[in-house]
Amino acid sequence: MQLTKHTDFALRTLMYVGALPIDKLATISEISGKFEIPRNHLMKVVNQLGRSGYLKTQRGPKGGIQLAVPANEINVAALIKDFEVRLDPINCDKPLCPIRGGCELKQALNLAQKAFFDVLQSYSLADLLKQPNAINKLIIVSD
Amino acid sequence: MQLTKHTDFALRTLMYVGALPIDKLATISEISGKFEIPRNHLMKVVNQLGRSGYLKTQRGPKGGIQLAVPANEINVAALIKDFEVRLDPINCDKPLCPIRGGCELKQALNLAQKAFFDVLQSYSLADLLKQPNAINKLIIVSD
Repeated sequence: MQLTKHTDFALRTLMYVGALPIDKLATISEISGKFEIPRNHLMKVVNQLGRSGYLKTQRGPKGGIQLAVPANEINVAALIKDFEVRLDPINCDKPLCPIRGGCELKQALNLAQKAFFDVLQSYSLADLLKQPNAINKLIIVSD
Repeated sequence: MQLTKHTDFALRTLMYVGALPIDKLATISEISGKFEIPRNHLMKVVNQLGRSGYLKTQRGPKGGIQLAVPANEINVAALIKDFEVRLDPINCDKPLCPIRGGCELKQALNLAQKAFFDVLQSYSLADLLKQPNAINKLIIVSD
């Protein structure tokens, strides 16, 4: 009943990048160190965040990554849906269930999942960055 | 964003056992064959369902398993909480997050998860067994 590490790392990365002052770029090394995320995994996450339009990269010796859109335009539910490989709470095809298609359990779980995303639909990345104490802790190391 | 196979198999097992006529016992072999669940994993699931008070076992050559309580007393949310090893949508301790404790993301995910379980709280096992077409398909093989 957990999000994948891939989604978790995407959320942490966006929170870090979004917490920095507007003129400050983040680096893979900073984020990797900050959250103890293995560098190889983080690079895959950052690449996907770039391809999906959440991050942009500035190349060069003073380069780094920053948000590609304002934090209040990054929706948490949408991000999770982009990153989770499987969204359905159970996989009726593996192993194959003889009552898939007409199963009340599946319908109940789908309703529950809709309620889950309905809550997150109301959160943007900007909402996640509203706790000054927490956000200051994020930024300290990068200064 | 999926339930574990362990929880999935527990739900399938209870649906099968609950779908049988009241005087008919289920066997591990039947359930394993019906849902293509590996026998060893299924035995662990059935043992836990027994220890948790959902199933009871009758020993002997005509023995088998049956519900330990009526289907309308088995709550789907409670069962999932019993079976999921980790309930929190992300694990802030692995890797260790510097803003755990004061993080808005965690609070948002906890609210979303509460909404997920609030929906399932209204379902009992009996509710999952109300689709005659699906349930007949479950029982056919056992007759």
